[in-house]
Amino acid sequence: MAYELYYWPTIQGRGEFVRLALEAAGADYADVARASAAEGRGVPALLRFLSGHGNGEGVRCPPFAPPFLKHGKLVVGQTAAILLYLGPRLGLVGKSEAARLWTHQLQLTLADMVTEVHDTHHPIASSLYYEDQKPEALRRAADFRKTRLPKFLAWFEAVLESNPAGGARGGPYLVGGRLSYADLSLFQLVQGLQYAFPAAMKRALKKAPRVVALHASVAQRPRIAAYLNSERRIAFNEDGIFRHYPELDG
Amino acid sequence: MAYELYYWPTIQGRGEFVRLALEAAGADYADVARASAAEGRGVPALLRFLSGHGNGEGVRCPPFAPPFLKHGKLVVGQTAAILLYLGPRLGLVGKSEAARLWTHQLQLTLADMVTEVHDTHHPIASSLYYEDQKPEALRRAADFRKTRLPKFLAWFEAVLESNPAGGARGGPYLVGGRLSYADLSLFQLVQGLQYAFPAAMKRALKKAPRVVALHASVAQRPRIAAYLNSERRIAFNEDGIFRHYPELDG
Repeated sequence: MAYELYYWPTIQGRGEFVRLALEAAGADYADVARASAAEGRGVPALLRFLSGHGNGEGVRCPPFAPPFLKHGKLVVGQTAAILLYLGPRLGLVGKSEAARLWTHQLQLTLADMVTEVHDTHHPIASSLYYEDQKPEALRRAADFRKTRLPKFLAWFEAVLESNPAGGARGGPYLVGGRLSYADLSLFQLVQGLQYAFPAAMKRALKKAPRVVALHASVAQRPRIAAYLNSERRIAFNEDGIFRHYPELDG
Repeated sequence: MAYELYYWPTIQGRGEFVRLALEAAGADYADVARASAAEGRGVPALLRFLSGHGNGEGVRCPPFAPPFLKHGKLVVGQTAAILLYLGPRLGLVGKSEAARLWTHQLQLTLADMVTEVHDTHHPIASSLYYEDQKPEALRRAADFRKTRLPKFLAWFEAVLESNPAGGARGGPYLVGGRLSYADLSLFQLVQGLQYAFPAAMKRALKKAPRVVALHASVAQRPRIAAYLNSERRIAFNEDGIFRHYPELDG
């Protein structure tokens, strides 16, 4: 049964963390909002779910916001919850409860950082344009570069360092000696930060060699490399979470 | 085996969502950082974990930030992940995978809102005082009151409305016909928002009668009522997430 991912069609955004998991596993999935509205898909299909009316039936569990995943009758929203569901099904998480919880905890910390990245360009309101909150964005981005970015990267570096099996073939890995969805998400976070804050990231990554190595190893995985080179990978742009505004890179 | 909660000892903060679950279940737990440093507990014990050295041994899974829970050898951080772990053990979540995912999704959306509440008084940097970001806080809080608060409350109201079993005895409930950790967290969110934004909440709750009813029913549960009246319940204050700054209430 194919997975149906619902996310905005013109940005990577939070949906990309789910796309990467599906792609890394070679899963059968549809990126619904990017398909044709004439065939009942496209953005109208996404909006029907948000309004509480999925496929014509009422939806018991309406998501608060995209991304959300439909799999059979199940509809699940919140990026980290989607990956919690997909992890065991796609072979992208360890089997023990401890491994699953730890991988999920890593993902939730990644999600916190993603929110902070978003707020560097939208510190006041998502409902306003960047241009309407630029002075505040300059202040918030300065703190992000100075305080938050190094703190988060140092933590992921410490996690990689403390994983005794992390140096297994094809790694480094965050959890055990195998690829997990958290590795894919950390790859995406680094990729996005390099796009948004190239100067700050160049400095910050000097102290995070294991994070650099993880990013490189994920990029080289055959399915990921093929995906990144395909038309399915949307380019970074200034509508998404990772935006390159040179004035915010300091 | 007793649970050990690690969280800052002078605020409710994110730790309170875990405390409420433990209290509602009558669980055996220690609030470690509030106990005596002379007995090896207190804030020093918390800081040892954050630095990667739990009880003298290295900790494989160091949390990024409090709260975190220790249960036997397991250490789990991130509020929502702690509740994911505790839910089945405390009888505070349904048995089916769908119920557990949906409850978790609700919790993650609650967590998003908690972050937005925090950022009303700290829109620029957690490392700065409120007084150093007051103009920005006034703008962000105005958008929160006008846009975000009504949107989140409307969603939880819709969730309650769409739960066919939610009107069971002792309810309303967010998921099925029984109490879940998400109900306790929504209670706490309402309680905190009423403290921080009394005027805005009075207006907003007029459109969310089911949320009001849930808040009242949780407060009346014997274990919760006893807890709220005990010394274990820390009072709201201006060091926590929910802060009452009248100028932000508009």
